Amino acid sequence: MAARLRGAMQYKPVNLADKFGKFSDHWSPRVIAEMNDYQFKLAKIEGEFVWHRHEDTDEVFIVLAGAMKIEFPDGEVSLQAGEMFVVPGGVDHRPSAEQECRIMLVEPRGVVNTGETGGELTAESDVWI
Amino acid sequence: MAARLRGAMQYKPVNLADKFGKFSDHWSPRVIAEMNDYQFKLAKIEGEFVWHRHEDTDEVFIVLAGAMKIEFPDGEVSLQAGEMFVVPGGVDHRPSAEQECRIMLVEPRGVVNTGETGGELTAESDVWI
Repeated sequence: MAARLRGAMQYKPVNLADKFGKFSDHWSPRVIAEMNDYQFKLAKIEGEFVWHRHEDTDEVFIVLAGAMKIEFPDGEVSLQAGEMFVVPGGVDHRPSAEQECRIMLVEPRGVVNTGETGGELTAESDVWI
Repeated sequence: MAARLRGAMQYKPVNLADKFGKFSDHWSPRVIAEMNDYQFKLAKIEGEFVWHRHEDTDEVFIVLAGAMKIEFPDGEVSLQAGEMFVVPGGVDHRPSAEQECRIMLVEPRGVVNTGETGGELTAESDVWI
């Protein structure tokens, strides 16, 4: 983390729109900032993700543009731009978006996007942009 | 936290604009969500805050509307809406905003807004809206 902190000490803002311009693939979160042992990630999502859970941590979704849905075994939540939701640790969920949606994720360093499920949508977990 | 998790399990989004409508005072962060032992807070800021530091934790500023500046002993960073910055733990800083600015803060539960400095701008640290 020391290198990241030294980076931050250059006093440059992290511009979210600039960061979104650096990638185009879906369901592949990119790290843009680190706070202690937590990471802030941006992702573009479209279509249905896999059902999964993160056994040991909550996970924050903040919608920055577009709309998405998170399904749970017993319900769902719809999120628009300017809305957020905390998925509690250990709870199965499936994110989806009918059209491309831009989100910010906040979770501990090292969390894998597909959680306990794995599979072909699993992305590398510590890719900075 | 259990009560907060049960709240989250009602599958209701946290709408940032709605939350901002619930308070008007400056420099007094309100908690809107909790992830593990971290909190997401909203604040309206205007004018100059006090110089302070948080000895044991980084602190995230995300500007949602308006513009702000964070001064450091050896420099400063200007942030517009859609930009964020991580203030490293132990680093003196002074936030300010020429006009009212809406921000999101992310930091561990229990962090006091004025850090090691204290004084009349010190706000209660765990006020939910």
